[in-house]
Amino acid sequence: MASILFDEIGLLYTGDQTGGEEIASAALVVEDETVAWVGPAASAPQADRRVDVGGRCVLPGFVDSHAHLVFAGDRTAEFVARMSGEQYRAGGIRTTVAATREAADSVLAARTAALVTEMLAQGTTTVEIKSGYGLTEEDERRSLEIAGAFTEETTFLGAHVVPAGVSTDDYVRQVAGPMLAACAPLARWIDVFCERGAFDGDQTREILSAGIAAGLGARVHAAQFGVGPGVEIACELGAASADHCTHLSDDDVTALATSGVVATLLPGAEFSTRSPYPDARRLLAAGATVALATDCNPGSSYTSSMPFCIALAVREMRMTPLEAVRAATHGGARALRRDDIGVLRPGSRADLAVLDAPSYVHLAYRPGVPLIHQVWRGGRKVA
Amino acid sequence: MASILFDEIGLLYTGDQTGGEEIASAALVVEDETVAWVGPAASAPQADRRVDVGGRCVLPGFVDSHAHLVFAGDRTAEFVARMSGEQYRAGGIRTTVAATREAADSVLAARTAALVTEMLAQGTTTVEIKSGYGLTEEDERRSLEIAGAFTEETTFLGAHVVPAGVSTDDYVRQVAGPMLAACAPLARWIDVFCERGAFDGDQTREILSAGIAAGLGARVHAAQFGVGPGVEIACELGAASADHCTHLSDDDVTALATSGVVATLLPGAEFSTRSPYPDARRLLAAGATVALATDCNPGSSYTSSMPFCIALAVREMRMTPLEAVRAATHGGARALRRDDIGVLRPGSRADLAVLDAPSYVHLAYRPGVPLIHQVWRGGRKVA
Ligand SMILES: [Zn+2]
Ligand SMILES: [Zn+2]
Repeated sequence: MASILFDEIGLLYTGDQTGGEEIASAALVVEDETVAWVGPAASAPQADRRVDVGGRCVLPGFVDSHAHLVFAGDRTAEFVARMSGEQYRAGGIRTTVAATREAADSVLAARTAALVTEMLAQGTTTVEIKSGYGLTEEDERRSLEIAGAFTEETTFLGAHVVPAGVSTDDYVRQVAGPMLAACAPLARWIDVFCERGAFDGDQTREILSAGIAAGLGARVHAAQFGVGPGVEIACELGAASADHCTHLSDDDVTALATSGVVATLLPGAEFSTRSPYPDARRLLAAGATVALATDCNPGSSYTSSMPFCIALAVREMRMTPLEAVRAATHGGARALRRDDIGVLRPGSRADLAVLDAPSYVHLAYRPGVPLIHQVWRGGRKVA
Repeated sequence: MASILFDEIGLLYTGDQTGGEEIASAALVVEDETVAWVGPAASAPQADRRVDVGGRCVLPGFVDSHAHLVFAGDRTAEFVARMSGEQYRAGGIRTTVAATREAADSVLAARTAALVTEMLAQGTTTVEIKSGYGLTEEDERRSLEIAGAFTEETTFLGAHVVPAGVSTDDYVRQVAGPMLAACAPLARWIDVFCERGAFDGDQTREILSAGIAAGLGARVHAAQFGVGPGVEIACELGAASADHCTHLSDDDVTALATSGVVATLLPGAEFSTRSPYPDARRLLAAGATVALATDCNPGSSYTSSMPFCIALAVREMRMTPLEAVRAATHGGARALRRDDIGVLRPGSRADLAVLDAPSYVHLAYRPGVPLIHQVWRGGRKVA
């Protein structure tokens, strides 16, 4: 058994809400893939190897619980047009579907790998990856196969948009039937884009219920463009997370707070579509669990940066730096129903980020600056 | 003479407004420290060495024409307080002054070096560095000495704020008299923080005029918190740049457009103080030259990232990606009255950034993502 002592940690954000959530002048011991000990540096045990962190801040690796990484093409021209004042049209997804279907497996895998590597370098040690740019049985299956090479947190999102040339009713039957049957063995989660122009409440309920019956956990794209039934359905069906949550009714907020469904906020999407941000303070005041994720995708949010999302959460959604970091670690883990990540306590996976800064506050205080000094995953240095 | 051919450039942003401002499928030849040739890859001349850029975008290294990098301490607690709703108080500068005065030369130099290195890694090949956290003859002098080790673009900003324990009148006399005499040999520029609570119009005029008489070029912190006389004075005295320009009268806009004084916008400051952004479109419509800079400082804008400022310029100030990149390269160069940088044409300094992206648009399209693949300065790879 190989152990490593991370010593001279200026500030350790453990995220362990049962203990002190942070420890100044701390140390942490990893044994193999797991955290074995955390506490004040002065009382640290011995280990086989010592890493001097040099007064830097250490925190759990980020958990990015919402990302669309298996795609080809990009949508630069659409971005430029939108920034000049044109409206975001959901139809843009179909551009990516066409490019993705045409791409070779090796191309899709290489591009996904590049994004995952980019995320790792920015401190993200766990990422959920959705399908949703295939929209045929075969293309959704291969998207999930590719995703599965990079994460256990794979999500079947056949219900991303209705593809051209198919009626919505037919497509819903396909997604909830043969496509689900083909994809369920490769996925941990099922997700539906519940929004005007995509899938309505009944369709969302039907698809998610079929997924749950097939053994998948549920998550929902809900309330991005307007108030809708997505959050209610997420709470009713016991989904792990309702994502976006930009337009919520009072009932939605209450339902999130009482059901334990995580409200996953994706401020990168509001940044890149020049839209109003979700009201994080309202959710936090009601007692909801809030997660932050990138929504990384080539249409509405092409950032892969959890630090950037933290900076936006503080600037635009008035979360405190502590709340934002908690949402990007523990919140993401809750949105994936994981308690082995997003936190650093004995027994957790040894997934951690070392910042080139004395405090996690600098993730917001120094926006845009690459502050990730080192990343360790499962006890191994990966960036 | 050693020459390098940069080949397989997917998109070359030359910034040369007399020719095509961008060239697809381009190449560029550097001889020693200078650009010798730019054009289509197909007609590129031979060189001693070839660098395959692999389809990436190449652009001039960023010119960050406004930064405060010589300081000690940080203001994390003030940042957290402000983000929770407290107002920004100029008095915060005095905290940094106290820490800076106490710091050893070696500490100040090491911290400045760290920020300059951080900037280089983000594509900034020229940075202006101001004094302004010393506020005594001795401390301003040593700040400029330290700054001068990193850049030719040194700015004497004794008139940053009136230090505690001195009357404003006495301090203005000091700055425009013995402090200027001591600092002028070490500075290229003189700058004044012209703002309510700092220096008024008469004081600004007096200090800038003294600086100009001592052979320095003028630049002004103007109109950050409200409409004031700063822009008018900048235009009247032929300053190179009026910086911030957040609150402008119609006369200010006209004066900027007709005088050739560059309007340098610092959106990192608005981001980090949660303030309204300057109206870039109004300035561009009037025909003013706009520059983008970081304002990197520990109080109101601790970002060192020109890519982040470009993303903000597009999202928040509705500049097109092209306008934003132009402002971050050519605009910065104009604000420093330089025509050898911020542009890539025969005779320019070989300062360039290679992006991990096919287009400069990705600097806005992929906000927060570290996209700088390589940085070359004076023909040498530096990051
Ligand atoms: Zn999404
Ligand atoms: Zn400034």
